[in-house]
Amino acid sequence: MSGVVVRNPPRADQEVVDGLAACGVSTVHEAQGRTQLLDPALRPIYAGARVAGTAVTVSVPPGDNWMVHVAVEQCRDGDLLVVAPTTPSQAGYFGDLLATSLAARGVCGLVIDAGCRDVADLTRMQFPVWSRHVSAFGTVKETLGDVNVPVVCAGQWVRPGDVVVADDDGVVVVPRESAAQVLAAARAREAKEAVSRGRYAAGELGLDVNAMRERLARKGLTYVDAEETR
Amino acid sequence: MSGVVVRNPPRADQEVVDGLAACGVSTVHEAQGRTQLLDPALRPIYAGARVAGTAVTVSVPPGDNWMVHVAVEQCRDGDLLVVAPTTPSQAGYFGDLLATSLAARGVCGLVIDAGCRDVADLTRMQFPVWSRHVSAFGTVKETLGDVNVPVVCAGQWVRPGDVVVADDDGVVVVPRESAAQVLAAARAREAKEAVSRGRYAAGELGLDVNAMRERLARKGLTYVDAEETR
Amino acid sequence: MSGVVVRNPPRADQEVVDGLAACGVSTVHEAQGRTQLLDPALRPIYAGARVAGTAVTVSVPPGDNWMVHVAVEQCRDGDLLVVAPTTPSQAGYFGDLLATSLAARGVCGLVIDAGCRDVADLTRMQFPVWSRHVSAFGTVKETLGDVNVPVVCAGQWVRPGDVVVADDDGVVVVPRESAAQVLAAARAREAKEAVSRGRYAAGELGLDVNAMRERLARKGLTYVDAEETR
Amino acid sequence: MSGVVVRNPPRADQEVVDGLAACGVSTVHEAQGRTQLLDPALRPIYAGARVAGTAVTVSVPPGDNWMVHVAVEQCRDGDLLVVAPTTPSQAGYFGDLLATSLAARGVCGLVIDAGCRDVADLTRMQFPVWSRHVSAFGTVKETLGDVNVPVVCAGQWVRPGDVVVADDDGVVVVPRESAAQVLAAARAREAKEAVSRGRYAAGELGLDVNAMRERLARKGLTYVDAEETR
Amino acid sequence: MSGVVVRNPPRADQEVVDGLAACGVSTVHEAQGRTQLLDPALRPIYAGARVAGTAVTVSVPPGDNWMVHVAVEQCRDGDLLVVAPTTPSQAGYFGDLLATSLAARGVCGLVIDAGCRDVADLTRMQFPVWSRHVSAFGTVKETLGDVNVPVVCAGQWVRPGDVVVADDDGVVVVPRESAAQVLAAARAREAKEAVSRGRYAAGELGLDVNAMRERLARKGLTYVDAEETR
Amino acid sequence: MSGVVVRNPPRADQEVVDGLAACGVSTVHEAQGRTQLLDPALRPIYAGARVAGTAVTVSVPPGDNWMVHVAVEQCRDGDLLVVAPTTPSQAGYFGDLLATSLAARGVCGLVIDAGCRDVADLTRMQFPVWSRHVSAFGTVKETLGDVNVPVVCAGQWVRPGDVVVADDDGVVVVPRESAAQVLAAARAREAKEAVSRGRYAAGELGLDVNAMRERLARKGLTYVDAEETR
Repeated sequence: MSGVVVRNPPRADQEVVDGLAACGVSTVHEAQGRTQLLDPALRPIYAGARVAGTAVTVSVPPGDNWMVHVAVEQCRDGDLLVVAPTTPSQAGYFGDLLATSLAARGVCGLVIDAGCRDVADLTRMQFPVWSRHVSAFGTVKETLGDVNVPVVCAGQWVRPGDVVVADDDGVVVVPRESAAQVLAAARAREAKEAVSRGRYAAGELGLDVNAMRERLARKGLTYVDAEETR
Repeated sequence: MSGVVVRNPPRADQEVVDGLAACGVSTVHEAQGRTQLLDPALRPIYAGARVAGTAVTVSVPPGDNWMVHVAVEQCRDGDLLVVAPTTPSQAGYFGDLLATSLAARGVCGLVIDAGCRDVADLTRMQFPVWSRHVSAFGTVKETLGDVNVPVVCAGQWVRPGDVVVADDDGVVVVPRESAAQVLAAARAREAKEAVSRGRYAAGELGLDVNAMRERLARKGLTYVDAEETR
Repeated sequence: MSGVVVRNPPRADQEVVDGLAACGVSTVHEAQGRTQLLDPALRPIYAGARVAGTAVTVSVPPGDNWMVHVAVEQCRDGDLLVVAPTTPSQAGYFGDLLATSLAARGVCGLVIDAGCRDVADLTRMQFPVWSRHVSAFGTVKETLGDVNVPVVCAGQWVRPGDVVVADDDGVVVVPRESAAQVLAAARAREAKEAVSRGRYAAGELGLDVNAMRERLARKGLTYVDAEETR
Repeated sequence: MSGVVVRNPPRADQEVVDGLAACGVSTVHEAQGRTQLLDPALRPIYAGARVAGTAVTVSVPPGDNWMVHVAVEQCRDGDLLVVAPTTPSQAGYFGDLLATSLAARGVCGLVIDAGCRDVADLTRMQFPVWSRHVSAFGTVKETLGDVNVPVVCAGQWVRPGDVVVADDDGVVVVPRESAAQVLAAARAREAKEAVSRGRYAAGELGLDVNAMRERLARKGLTYVDAEETR
Repeated sequence: MSGVVVRNPPRADQEVVDGLAACGVSTVHEAQGRTQLLDPALRPIYAGARVAGTAVTVSVPPGDNWMVHVAVEQCRDGDLLVVAPTTPSQAGYFGDLLATSLAARGVCGLVIDAGCRDVADLTRMQFPVWSRHVSAFGTVKETLGDVNVPVVCAGQWVRPGDVVVADDDGVVVVPRESAAQVLAAARAREAKEAVSRGRYAAGELGLDVNAMRERLARKGLTYVDAEETR
Repeated sequence: MSGVVVRNPPRADQEVVDGLAACGVSTVHEAQGRTQLLDPALRPIYAGARVAGTAVTVSVPPGDNWMVHVAVEQCRDGDLLVVAPTTPSQAGYFGDLLATSLAARGVCGLVIDAGCRDVADLTRMQFPVWSRHVSAFGTVKETLGDVNVPVVCAGQWVRPGDVVVADDDGVVVVPRESAAQVLAAARAREAKEAVSRGRYAAGELGLDVNAMRERLARKGLTYVDAEETR
C-alpha cells in the first residue's frame, strides 16, 4: 500500500506562515484552543531557532531513510520537512548531507519523530532540527514509504500543506485552512500580553491584572496566617 | 480540602541562603548526609545558573496553573517558587509573564515538577527555571490548590521556609532549622576539597590523598598484569 | 569474584586513535558496518567536544565510586575512562576532583553509564563527559569492582585497549584489532561524502547523486499529482 | 473550538467487524501492510480478551472525563469506545460505573490513551479495556471536548466508524472503507499460516517452508563451524 | 544523620483500617479529595489482593536492604511495610525469606518504591507486594537508614502510623488523624455509587443520573448530525 | 561484516542446566556474585514458567527477523534462543509459527530484547518468552545478521553455549565454564536458605538468624521511643 509520492500539494500562504513564526509555538498553540502541539519529547538540537514552514510530509519505515531522499525533490522554498516512522525508531535518519540538500532548496527545518545525527555540523550550518533522539545509528535504504500523505507525527495529525511552527518551546501544527484565522487570534493574544507584561513588570499582580480575586473567593479560597496554623 | 493560602510562613536567614547558593547543590547535598536531592529529571532550562532561596510552595492540580498566580502575591525578595502538581502533568504551567511578575518581586527562580514554556524569553531574562519538561501545552484556571503548605516536589518533602538550592547539578532542599549547620558542614567540605584539588592537580592520586590503599587491600583487591591473564 | 585490577592492558595505536577522533562518531559507526554504538541515552554534558582514547574500563557496584579512584592509577596519557555499573544507577559517580586527577594524567574524557555531577566545573575545565544522567547524588566507597576487565557499557561490549570515540552524536567503540581498518574505511567514507556534499550544495538531489531512481521504480514507487487524489 | 458531538456517524459492517475480531490484531495488522497499530504501551487490563467494534471516538482534556459520559449516549450495540486526551494524562478516566453503562448498551470494550481504574471490578465483569496506565487518580468534569470527531489515539488516526480490533497483542485500527478488503487479506493470511503451522509442527524449517535459502546465500550468508573460529 | 529506629509509633485504629481496605484504593482516594495516591508505576506483583495496614516506614540506601531486616522487628499484626530508597534503585530488596518473616508477624503486605524478587514464591504464599520493579538484582548490607521516620514513597509523604491501602488500582496513603473521617466519606461514596450502578445497569445514562445536560449546554456543547458535517 | 552462522558451538552440560533451572534466577544470580542479570525490563509473557537452556544467540537488525529463521536450524533439544537487535526495536520479531518450529526442535524458550506477539497463542502452547515489549508490529526479511556469535542482550554479554536461566524474576546468564561451580554455590545457598526459612516461619528475626545486631550497633544504629521524639 505504501510507495506513493504526491506532487504539488496545496501550499500555505507564505505571509501567514511568516506571521505564525513570529508569534512562536506557545502563542500559536493557545490561539488555536490549546490543540495540535506535538509531543514535547521532540526537542531542538540547538537553542534559539524559531521557524515556520509548509509541511512536506514523509512516512518512513523504522530504520530506513530512503524516502527522505525521495521527499527532498518535492520540497520548495519555505517548506519544512516532517518525518514520521510507521513504528518508533531511534535511528539517525538525518545528517549534514541531507541538510545541505534541503538548505540548497530553501527548506527551513526538519521535524522528525525519530533520531538525528551530525548535530555539531547542523548547528554550525544553523539548520534547525526538532527530533526525539540524537543518535548516530545508521539507516538502510530498502523499503518504500510515502511522501505528502497525511501522517501522525509525535501524536499529531499533519497533512501536506499544513503550517508547522517550531521553536525552543516545541512544535505545533496549524491546519492550512484555519492558518489565517489562527494568526489573527495569535496576534490579538500577543497584543494583550504586551499590555499585561508591562503591568507585571511594574509590580501589578496577575490576580488584579486578570481580575481573578472574586472568582477565587467564590470557589472557596481562604487565607490564613502561618501563626494561626500552629 | 484544598484552597488554602498560608501567609507569612517563616523565612530562612538570607545570609545562610546566600552561603548555601555559593556552595552549590552537590556540596550541600553531601553536607547533609546525601539526602533531600530532588529527582535529577528536573533540569535547568539554560546552563550556568546557581541560586538559592526561601521556598514558597504551591500545590497545583494537573494542567491548572491558577494557584501559581495566587502564589505570586505571597512571594518576597529572596524567595524561590516551588510548584508541585498533585498528579504528574506535562503541561507548561509557567512562562514569561509569570516570570516578569516574579522578577518584579525579587524572586530568584522557579522549581517545578511539571512543564515550563517561553524558555527562549526566560533565558533572555535570565530567570532560571528547573523543570521536568519543556512544553508549550497550556493550562486552565478552574480548580483550587494550596499555597505555602508542605508539598512533595520531585520526590522530596518541601515546606514553606525551607531553603532550596539549584544549579546545573540539580536541586536540593535544606530544612530551615538545620540550614546554618548544613552551611557550616558544606563550607568545611569545600575547604577540604580545595586542598585535595591542589594535590590532584599536582598529580597525586585519590588512593593516596584519601589513604584508601590499606582498606582496599583488606577487602581483597588484587592486582594482576595483563600478560598473566592470557 | 570482583576485586581485580588488570595492569598494562594492550594500548591502541595513538595515531589511529587520533584519526578516528577526527572522523567522528557517525562516520566511524558507519565505517564498521553500523555496529557498536552505545545507547544514545548517553549524552555529553556540554556541546562541542570530540575525543577518542584507549579505553580503561571500570566495573562498579551501583552507587559506589570507590573503584573509579582505583582506576585513575591505571590511566595514562591518551586514555579514556569507561565506567559501567553492574546494575543501573542514577548516582553521580564523578565530579570535578576526579576530573582534575584524570586531566593531570592526560586522560581525554569519561564515558559512564550512570550519573555525573559538578557539570558547571567540568564545562569550565573542558573535561568532556558522556553520561546517562546529570545527578548530584553522592556515592559510597564500600564495595569492590574491577578495573580493565571487559564490560558492557550502555549496551556495548568494551574491552580495555579498545578505542572509544565520542562527540555530540554519541559514543562508539572500535575493537583494537580492527581499528586501523575501520579508520581506513572511515576516511574513504569521508572522502566520498565530501564529493557528495559539494553536489548537494550545488542543488543536485540524492536521488541522482546516489542513482536511486531506477531501484525505487523497480520497488514500485509511483508519483501522483495532488489534483488527482481528490 | 471544542464541544461538538457528532451523531450517527457511519457504522462498519458488523459481519466484517466480527470477522476481523476472529483474525486478531497481529494478523489484521499484517494484512493491511503493517500499518495502523497503536502504540504497544497500551496494554489490556486482563489477559485473554479479543474484541472488535465500530469506533466511537472521544477527544478529552487532560484529567477530565466529562465527555466520556457524553459519549456513552452515542454508543450502540457493537461499538467500541476510543478515548484520546489532547495532552498526555495518567488520570483514571474510566471505572466500573461507566463500564456498567457501556455494557448495558452493548459496547464491547474501551481503548484509552490514558489511565483506567477499578480494574478488579472490570475483570470480574469481563469488560475489556486497553489503557496506557492503571491509575486510581480521579478526574474532574469541567471542560468540554468532542465526540465522534477524528482523533489521534496512541499514535494512530482513528475516525468514528473505523473498525478497532484489540487483543493480547495490542490494538489496531482498520479504516471503514477498506475493512472488507483487509478482512479478505487477513483470512488469506490465516489460511496460509495454517498450512505453514502444520509443516513447522512436523519439524520442517522456515528456511524451507518459505524457500529462503537461495536469497540468503545471494545476500552473502556464510556458515562456519565453531571449530574453525578458534 | 541516618541510623535511627523509632519504636512504638502511634497505630491507626484497626477497625478503620479494615473499613478502608473494604472500600478500596479508588474510592478512598476520591474520598480524601483526590490526593495522596502513590505513583501508579507501583504495581502489584499479582492480581486480586486488596489490603490496608498501619504503615511501618523504612528509609533505605540505594541497593542496600539491611534496614528492612531491622524494620521487621518493629512490625506488629496489622502493619504494612513501606520501603523508600533515598535515591532511585531497581534492586530487588525483598524476597520470600523476608516475606516469611513478615507473615509470621501478621504483616499484611509491602509497598516498596524499588524492586522485589521471588515473585513466584510470594504469589504462592499470597503475600502481596506493590513495587516499581520486579528484579532479581541482589542488595548489600553495608549502610544504615531509618525506621519509622516520615518518608516520601513514590511521590507521597508517609508517616509511621498512617494508613496505607493497596489493591489492583494502586496504593493510597491516609493520614492517621483523618482516617475515620475519610472512611465515613468513602462509605457515603460507596452507597451513592451503589444506587448509580443500579441505574446504569438498567440503561440510564450518566448524563441523566448526574443531571449533567444543563451544565453541558451552558458550557456550549452542541450536537450535529454526521450528515451535516460532510 | 554480518552474515555469519556459526555451527556446532560448545554446549553446556544438560545436568548442570537442569540444576540451574531448579534453583531459579534470583538464587543463581546471587550464587555468581550478583552479576550477569539481564535488564529487568525483560518480562515473561505469562507467569509461572521457569526454564534454563544452552544459549543459541542471534544478532538481528532492527525490525528484521530473517535471521531468527536462520537460527532455528542451529537449535537442538535443550537450547534456549537469545535474540538481540543491533539497535533498540519494539517490533514483534516472534510469534506462534516460530514457536511451533522451535518447540518441534525441543527448544525450551526465547529471550529477546525486543517485541513478541501472538502472546495468547504462546500462552496456550506454554512456550515461554521473556521480552521487552509485547507488540504486533511486523518485521521485514531484508538484512543479514549473525547466529552463534557473542551478543549483548539486555545489558549482558551472552556467548553461544552459555547457560541462560529465566523465570518470573527475570533472566540471568551463566558462563558455560563456570556453570558447574555456580550450580554448587546456588545449591549451597538454597540449603542455607531452607534452614533460615524455617526459623523465620517460626518467628525468629533476621537480626538474630543472621547475627546482625552487633555490627549494626557498631555502625551507630540507635533506638528511640516515639514518645521521646515529640
